Amino acid sequence: MASSVVAKGRVQSIANHLTPQNNTPDHEKYRIQRKPGQVPYLTPLDPVRFLLRSAMVYRKKTAVVHGDRSFDYETLADRTLRLANLLLHDFAVQPGDRVAILCQNVPAFLEAMYAIPSIAAVMVPLNTRLAQPEIDYVIKHSGASVLIVQDELFPRISPTVQRNLKIIRVADYQNNGDPPCPYEQLLQNTNTILGWKDLPLTTDENALISINYTSGSTGRPKGVMVSYRGCYMMAIGMCVQAHLSPETVYLWTLPMFHCNGWNFPWALVAAGATQVMLNKMDYTYIWKLIKELRVTHYCGAPTVQNEVCHHKDAVQLDYTLLAFSGGAPLAPKIIRGLNDLNIYLTQVYGLTETYGPCVLTYDRGSLSQYPEDQHLGLVARQGYNIITQDEVRVLDQKTANDVTADGQQVGEICLVGNVTMMGYYNDPEETKKCFRAGVFWTGDLAVRHADGVIEIVDRSKDVIVSGGENISSIEVENTIVGMEEVSECAIIAGPDDKWGERPFAFVVVREGRSTTADAILNHCRKNLAGYKCPAKVIFTESIPKTR
Amino acid sequence: MASSVVAKGRVQSIANHLTPQNNTPDHEKYRIQRKPGQVPYLTPLDPVRFLLRSAMVYRKKTAVVHGDRSFDYETLADRTLRLANLLLHDFAVQPGDRVAILCQNVPAFLEAMYAIPSIAAVMVPLNTRLAQPEIDYVIKHSGASVLIVQDELFPRISPTVQRNLKIIRVADYQNNGDPPCPYEQLLQNTNTILGWKDLPLTTDENALISINYTSGSTGRPKGVMVSYRGCYMMAIGMCVQAHLSPETVYLWTLPMFHCNGWNFPWALVAAGATQVMLNKMDYTYIWKLIKELRVTHYCGAPTVQNEVCHHKDAVQLDYTLLAFSGGAPLAPKIIRGLNDLNIYLTQVYGLTETYGPCVLTYDRGSLSQYPEDQHLGLVARQGYNIITQDEVRVLDQKTANDVTADGQQVGEICLVGNVTMMGYYNDPEETKKCFRAGVFWTGDLAVRHADGVIEIVDRSKDVIVSGGENISSIEVENTIVGMEEVSECAIIAGPDDKWGERPFAFVVVREGRSTTADAILNHCRKNLAGYKCPAKVIFTESIPKTR
Repeated sequence: MASSVVAKGRVQSIANHLTPQNNTPDHEKYRIQRKPGQVPYLTPLDPVRFLLRSAMVYRKKTAVVHGDRSFDYETLADRTLRLANLLLHDFAVQPGDRVAILCQNVPAFLEAMYAIPSIAAVMVPLNTRLAQPEIDYVIKHSGASVLIVQDELFPRISPTVQRNLKIIRVADYQNNGDPPCPYEQLLQNTNTILGWKDLPLTTDENALISINYTSGSTGRPKGVMVSYRGCYMMAIGMCVQAHLSPETVYLWTLPMFHCNGWNFPWALVAAGATQVMLNKMDYTYIWKLIKELRVTHYCGAPTVQNEVCHHKDAVQLDYTLLAFSGGAPLAPKIIRGLNDLNIYLTQVYGLTETYGPCVLTYDRGSLSQYPEDQHLGLVARQGYNIITQDEVRVLDQKTANDVTADGQQVGEICLVGNVTMMGYYNDPEETKKCFRAGVFWTGDLAVRHADGVIEIVDRSKDVIVSGGENISSIEVENTIVGMEEVSECAIIAGPDDKWGERPFAFVVVREGRSTTADAILNHCRKNLAGYKCPAKVIFTESIPKTR
Repeated sequence: MASSVVAKGRVQSIANHLTPQNNTPDHEKYRIQRKPGQVPYLTPLDPVRFLLRSAMVYRKKTAVVHGDRSFDYETLADRTLRLANLLLHDFAVQPGDRVAILCQNVPAFLEAMYAIPSIAAVMVPLNTRLAQPEIDYVIKHSGASVLIVQDELFPRISPTVQRNLKIIRVADYQNNGDPPCPYEQLLQNTNTILGWKDLPLTTDENALISINYTSGSTGRPKGVMVSYRGCYMMAIGMCVQAHLSPETVYLWTLPMFHCNGWNFPWALVAAGATQVMLNKMDYTYIWKLIKELRVTHYCGAPTVQNEVCHHKDAVQLDYTLLAFSGGAPLAPKIIRGLNDLNIYLTQVYGLTETYGPCVLTYDRGSLSQYPEDQHLGLVARQGYNIITQDEVRVLDQKTANDVTADGQQVGEICLVGNVTMMGYYNDPEETKKCFRAGVFWTGDLAVRHADGVIEIVDRSKDVIVSGGENISSIEVENTIVGMEEVSECAIIAGPDDKWGERPFAFVVVREGRSTTADAILNHCRKNLAGYKCPAKVIFTESIPKTR
């Protein structure tokens, strides 16, 4: 079992320098107090509960590996409790307050995903790839009062916004020789005055647990509101669909800020799995980890799958690794290539608005009903609803009727069910636009095949998907038109071998003025995340209007 | 993959003689209509939805095997829809009406478990081992108006009770040469006037889905009320804990009437598994099925485990079979014996009041944190809460405080959470008795060990557990005292090699009268299920009172 190897091979380095908790027996330590009058047969669906159960059941089993460090489930629960106390006492966080997180895949992020809801506050995970003005916008729009931020990302917060925030700084402390980390020191010095039973956990499973900002087709990022119940249902659905178990070793190739890490931070803890943190997409290191720790699961955009597949250190594994790919359709060539390495790939589809991947393709067990030579073609499509979401539908944009299941008629993908967002934060107008005829309209176009499975034919026309990230063409256009020298701009999705798509800018210079491609790119880099900046700037005399 | 072997090897005999449904595409056929005004992000947790999803995803995959017959997921959904239409139109079942089921593990039982809730009626599964007066009592107490009954069990219903019931008769039609079955003929002749989208599914996840009668310590069977949400949560919890997947082949050694088959009828369909029906505990046939169909999972009382372990046809399997044992503690010797056959055993604990097994011992993946020589001892205890139930507690019966986790202090097992019953049907007094201090009191005694796991030390003193069935000693006492010749009776749990325990009767004969052990046994057989009848009758002059 890979997990026990991990537990033995790594030093329990963090647990050792924490002050011991009092001697409450475990089963009392991890108990949540029930409210007076609460009926015995109803407990709010809340992913925080997964941690408390796993801390009791999986105790000394390795929960987290991060570089040379690793720690067990008891330690994860203890660290989370300390962070919750810290937020409550030192940062005066009240139920409903927004706490932003700007971190890579470090243990602090995982801990925050339990500590913040455990005090009924609201998480606001920030995309680490955003530029300063974008991050400032999201922090302001969400009304976050506290920020947990990793050192190298701190300069992304403008001084003005910094002044209005209480800040917890995290150093990426992954090796024993690394410089001291302020976050670790805070945890160490926090007294766990309140135990789990004293924390103000939510009593309403339909309350807001997180606001996840996403770039849609309309410019400014929108704050997707997700609930406790939704995250619980998505996490337990992922346990079933990804076959998670205590023998799972998960590698964090997916950014944790992406739809709350597709809810895996909760699903993995629920299943008693081991999670391996990862900050940097270094594929030599990734292959080293896969081989050394016998990684059983990872998720990522097509770019990630492509790099894993074609890396020089890639070898055929002597066990099956399950990989999940989302963000854009994946070429069957890569699915086959990964299969040859014993990496079985499942395509998924979803949006931040649907808690991440709520549509997935056939897994191996379900393919048994089809002849083997059809398998590759079948899994190259996006699939059907996961177990905790309602049926995925493809509707005609005008009539809101289902398209014919003929693989030909194109419609818009629509979703409904327990893992559908509650709406956009403080944005009733955008919320109203995307809910129509009782369903959520994704903006993505698809056909339905005769077997009921959907296949994406086009992402919504104003969204460019680059390495799994959404780019709003309108946002980039608006940025470029913000330059005095530019009178008009149009962004299109240009092809890119590595990232799938990248933005190409068509620019019309204002009469009597002049500018250069470099000047435009510099302006973009200052105002936009790097991945949103155009790969090419093409000057033109006019932009044809077709609509 | 075992399941595809099954699908190929067996005739799709039922689908062939059903009239074809209309040509609605699958994705529309299996859709549930949302209610006007229903918010898009909330769908009631309802296990019926598992079938509709699986009918679309697993289509031609084998869902059910029964003797020479087998059928796929599309057929299972079609048969269920026909039964729902039959109940609605021909039997005039209204939402909230009670429909009783008196069947062994035959496809009709499984289909009823989807059809009855799909029209918002309430299931009442009957224990096939009960005697006529007991069955009459349960039917009357539940107020059931319709009964689905297997031919050989029909004589268990008294003529008086029969007259008040609308009855659907089921023949155990498992081989092609078997005589025609009225149930099959009814299904064949039913027009599916209403599709799934027209059925009056529940809109309230906390509504009553089933009343499960159980013998407690107080005589008459009590009707345990369970909800849609509870059954959904238990089923999805079982998917995670039993590692169910489309590759699962489940053998029905557990009676389906037992806590709704521990919710496996829903869990297995959710996971896309194949279920193998079984009517008779013939261990030669069971071993034949295990080997031929490569069974991956089964559940059963210690008696079942014992027989499987020691059968002459038992062989070491070349794959791992997961077995679940509940009803009474199991000797470590048998756990080890099954292990040698490659049957990995998980002990579970639960009651009808907790939807079946809501406590289970460490599985293999969680044992990695302990030294290997401790594993057998660790899994011989009953365990910790399953993922969808709250923490299991052991409380002092007087103070309602948790016992010390020292493996010594005895307390009563208490439970709370989403898989805890809502109460006893039409019995506020008994309901009130078992809910105290905000938790459900099981009546079973246990200690808690230092690792948080509980171990049962005694079932509630007035309940005898024989082959996994509860026997109320008071009910047997009352039956015997009902004889004119008897003045007093006391039932105790006598040891039994095969069944674990059996009732022993101490009888005081009324002054001036006389009777025989045979007369007493005859009286019991007429009024009680066979398993409740005393194994021994001992005449005595008086019964000492200690309380």
